Amino acid sequence: MKLLQQLCEIHAPSGNEIRMKEFLLKYITKEKKNWKGKPTVYHGDEFQDNIILKFGKPRTAIFAHMDSIGFTVRYYNQLLPIGSPDAEMGTKLVGEDSLGPIECELEFDKDHHAFYKFGRQIDRGTELTYKINFRDTKDYIESAYLDNRLGIYNALKVAETLKDGVIVFSTWEEHGGGAVPYLAKFIHEQWNVKQALISDITWVSDGVDHGKGVAISMRDRNIPRRAFVNKIIDVAKKRKVPYQLEVEGMGSSDGRELQVSPYPFDWCFVGAPEHNAHTPDEKVHKRDIKSMIDLYSWLMKDL
Amino acid sequence: MKLLQQLCEIHAPSGNEIRMKEFLLKYITKEKKNWKGKPTVYHGDEFQDNIILKFGKPRTAIFAHMDSIGFTVRYYNQLLPIGSPDAEMGTKLVGEDSLGPIECELEFDKDHHAFYKFGRQIDRGTELTYKINFRDTKDYIESAYLDNRLGIYNALKVAETLKDGVIVFSTWEEHGGGAVPYLAKFIHEQWNVKQALISDITWVSDGVDHGKGVAISMRDRNIPRRAFVNKIIDVAKKRKVPYQLEVEGMGSSDGRELQVSPYPFDWCFVGAPEHNAHTPDEKVHKRDIKSMIDLYSWLMKDL
Amino acid sequence: MKLLQQLCEIHAPSGNEIRMKEFLLKYITKEKKNWKGKPTVYHGDEFQDNIILKFGKPRTAIFAHMDSIGFTVRYYNQLLPIGSPDAEMGTKLVGEDSLGPIECELEFDKDHHAFYKFGRQIDRGTELTYKINFRDTKDYIESAYLDNRLGIYNALKVAETLKDGVIVFSTWEEHGGGAVPYLAKFIHEQWNVKQALISDITWVSDGVDHGKGVAISMRDRNIPRRAFVNKIIDVAKKRKVPYQLEVEGMGSSDGRELQVSPYPFDWCFVGAPEHNAHTPDEKVHKRDIKSMIDLYSWLMKDL
Repeated sequence: MKLLQQLCEIHAPSGNEIRMKEFLLKYITKEKKNWKGKPTVYHGDEFQDNIILKFGKPRTAIFAHMDSIGFTVRYYNQLLPIGSPDAEMGTKLVGEDSLGPIECELEFDKDHHAFYKFGRQIDRGTELTYKINFRDTKDYIESAYLDNRLGIYNALKVAETLKDGVIVFSTWEEHGGGAVPYLAKFIHEQWNVKQALISDITWVSDGVDHGKGVAISMRDRNIPRRAFVNKIIDVAKKRKVPYQLEVEGMGSSDGRELQVSPYPFDWCFVGAPEHNAHTPDEKVHKRDIKSMIDLYSWLMKDL
Repeated sequence: MKLLQQLCEIHAPSGNEIRMKEFLLKYITKEKKNWKGKPTVYHGDEFQDNIILKFGKPRTAIFAHMDSIGFTVRYYNQLLPIGSPDAEMGTKLVGEDSLGPIECELEFDKDHHAFYKFGRQIDRGTELTYKINFRDTKDYIESAYLDNRLGIYNALKVAETLKDGVIVFSTWEEHGGGAVPYLAKFIHEQWNVKQALISDITWVSDGVDHGKGVAISMRDRNIPRRAFVNKIIDVAKKRKVPYQLEVEGMGSSDGRELQVSPYPFDWCFVGAPEHNAHTPDEKVHKRDIKSMIDLYSWLMKDL
Repeated sequence: MKLLQQLCEIHAPSGNEIRMKEFLLKYITKEKKNWKGKPTVYHGDEFQDNIILKFGKPRTAIFAHMDSIGFTVRYYNQLLPIGSPDAEMGTKLVGEDSLGPIECELEFDKDHHAFYKFGRQIDRGTELTYKINFRDTKDYIESAYLDNRLGIYNALKVAETLKDGVIVFSTWEEHGGGAVPYLAKFIHEQWNVKQALISDITWVSDGVDHGKGVAISMRDRNIPRRAFVNKIIDVAKKRKVPYQLEVEGMGSSDGRELQVSPYPFDWCFVGAPEHNAHTPDEKVHKRDIKSMIDLYSWLMKDL
C-alpha cells in the first residue's frame, strides 16, 4: 500500500493536477517494463494535464480522475470550496505560495463560510488540500483522498496484466469536469472505443456495506444504459467476484460527461465503497479493494 | 388511436428504452411500404437504443423521445424517481424482475419519499412505470405517457407522407439526456441538417388552452433563435393551421441539447398541450393532435 | 466613447442578437482598412448570428458576447427574465412588436414576479431591454449593458493593431449559452487554436476595486487550468499593466462552455470590474478600460 500512500500525498486539486501527472508519468515509465502489455502513453499539449494509456486493441476504457477536492484562498482569510469538501473546524490544510510552504487550519463562521487560520496572509488563488494522515490497519485503509487515489491505484494494478484496453487519468472531475469530452472524443475517434468503466470511489450506505465487495452502480444522478449494466453484473456473477449493487439518486462522476458527450458511450461506475466521503478520513475495506481490482481485470477481458 | 394506445403501453423508462426501439423497428419495417417516401433506417451499436429515419434530401429533423418517467427500486421498499414523476399515493406501478411481473402500489412517507407496496421484495434497480389506463373519448385522449408517445405518434403520422427529412427517436430525454449530442452530430455531419423540430408535449397553462391548436413554444428554460421561431409562425399562418404561442420560463426538451451541441442547430418545440403532465392522467384534446400533425407536415415541406 | 455608446444602445437580448451582428459587420467592413492586420470575416448560415474574425496565424482567441439580459413578454402583462436582470420597479424597458415601438415600465408583485405597465397589450414573445442612459464622466462610464458592450469595445480596439489571433463575437451567453461549442470547434479545427481570453465584465467586490486595473479571474464557478492563469499573470507583470487578481466562487462566462467543450481549450476571464452588475446603471472606471485594452494587446502578442 506504499504506492497508494504516495498517491494520496500528492497535491492535485481540480485545475492544478500537474504534480499528479508528473508522478504518474514517472511511475509508468519506470514500471511498464514489468507489465504484460506495453502501453502507448499519450500526454502533452493536446491533452492538458491528462494522460491516456493505450494497450493492444482496446474495446473498453477505464477512467480514473486525478484531481481532489480542496479550497482556494480568496480575499483576506476567506476560502472557497473546490468541489464539495466536508471537513470540520480545525482540519489541517496544506499548500504553497510565493512565500513558501503552508500548513494552516480550517475555520468556519456561524454562516458556515470557510476561513483559514495562519500566521500570515496567503496569496490569492492558492489551493489548499487536506494534510494526509494515512492509516493502514488489518482490514481498512483510512486517509484523505482515497477518492480517487484508490481509483488510480486500481487502474495501475489492472495495468500490470492488461492486454487490450485504454486507461484515462482525467482532471477536474470534482469541480465541473471539462476534460472528459475531448478525452472521449480522442479514444472514440482513434480506436472506436465506446465502453467505459468509471474507476472511482462510492459511499457506504443503507444498501452498500464495507467488506461485501466492489459496488456496481446501477444509477446515481445519471442513469447508464441498463443493457450495459446487466453485462457487467453478468461478468461479476460468472467470474465469482464479490460485488454489491448500488442504486442512488444523487452523486455523479466522469460517467456523466461520457453520457452527454457527442459519442455513443456506454459507461458504468464500478468502485469500492467508503465511509466519510470527502473528509480527511475516507475509509475503505481492503477486501473491497481486492474485489475492485479483480472485477476490473475480468471486465477488461470479458466485455 | 390503436397505435397511440400500443405506444403508451410499452415499458420504456429512461435508460431502458429497448422495448420501444424494438416495437418501432418492427412497426416501421411493416408500414414503410405504404409510405410515400422510403426511409433509410439507422440503428444498432453506434446508436445505442435510438433510431434515425432518413427520407430523401433532408433539411429538417423531427426529434421525438421514446423514454418515459418512472421509478427505480432502491434498497428495501424505497423508490427513486426517473425524471420527474408526479403521482399520488396508491398509483399502480408495473414492471418485471427476476421473479416475474410486478404490479405494485406507490406510497409516500411524510417527507414525500417514495416507496412501493408489494407482497415481496423487488430486485434492486428494477424500473417501474405507471400502469396504463387509456381513455379515448369524443374530444380527448387521456393516458399516462402521452408525453411522449403522442410525440412519437405524430412523427409516425408525418412519416406516411414525408418526402425530405429526418426523424429521430431519442432516449434519456426525461432524465438528463445524453443521446441527442451524438445523434445531432450524425445528422449534421451526414446531411448537413441544422433545423430541428421537437415533437413533444407541453402544458395547458394560463396562456395555452385545450383545443385551440398546437403550441409553438417561443421559449422555455431555453431560448431558441428568434429568427427560426418566426419562420415557424409564418408557416402556421400561411398554411392556416390553428396554433397557440407559448412563452415559458421553465421546462426543457431535446431542444436544450441541440442548443448546446457543437453544431449550429436551430430548433423549436412544437407540440400539443396537455393537462396533468407527468401524472397517470395526461390529457390532450384531439383537435390539438390534428393540428400538430398538420403543422409538422407543412413545416417539413416549407422550412 | 461614441462607439461604446452606440454599442450599448443596440437591442440584442439573448436569442435575438441579429441587430448587433448587423452593426458589427457594417462597422468591421468600414473600419478594417485602418487596421494593421486585415482579418477574414466568418459569418452566415453555419454561424447563426455569431461572427468570427481571423487575423494572421492565430494562437489565441478573444471571446466577447454580443447578447444582453432583458425580459420576454409572457401572457397578459407578465414578464420572464432573459438571463438575470436586476432592476427596480419603474425601470424603463424598450422593444418593438407588430404594433410598433414600445417604452414601458417594469413592475413587480409582492412575490417578485415581473410585469410591464403599458397602455396596450404587447405581443407574446416580445423581448424588452433596458432603456439606455449613457453617462460619460471624468473617471467613469455608466450605462446599462457595459456587460458586455465594453467587452466588444475592447475586442474592437485590440483588433486595430492585432497581427495574429481570432476574435469571436458570441451569442446566448447570458441565457444558457449554446453557440460557443460550435465556435470553439470551428476555430480549433481550422487553426488549432486552444487558448482563449474571455473579454467580459466582472464585479467590484471586497477584493477587486474600481480604478486599480483589469481583473484577471483565477476562478469563478469554474476553475481554469492554473498553468494558463499563471502565464497571463506573468505577462501582466512583465508588461507592467495594472491588474487585480479575482477569486470568486460564483459567476460564469463563455469560459464555462470552452471548459466543457470536446476541445482542449485553456481559457481565462480577463475584464474590467463594474458596480451594479445587470442593472441599468453598470459603472466602470476608465482606467480599468484602458488597462483591459493594454493587457489584451500584450496577451495576444505574448501568449
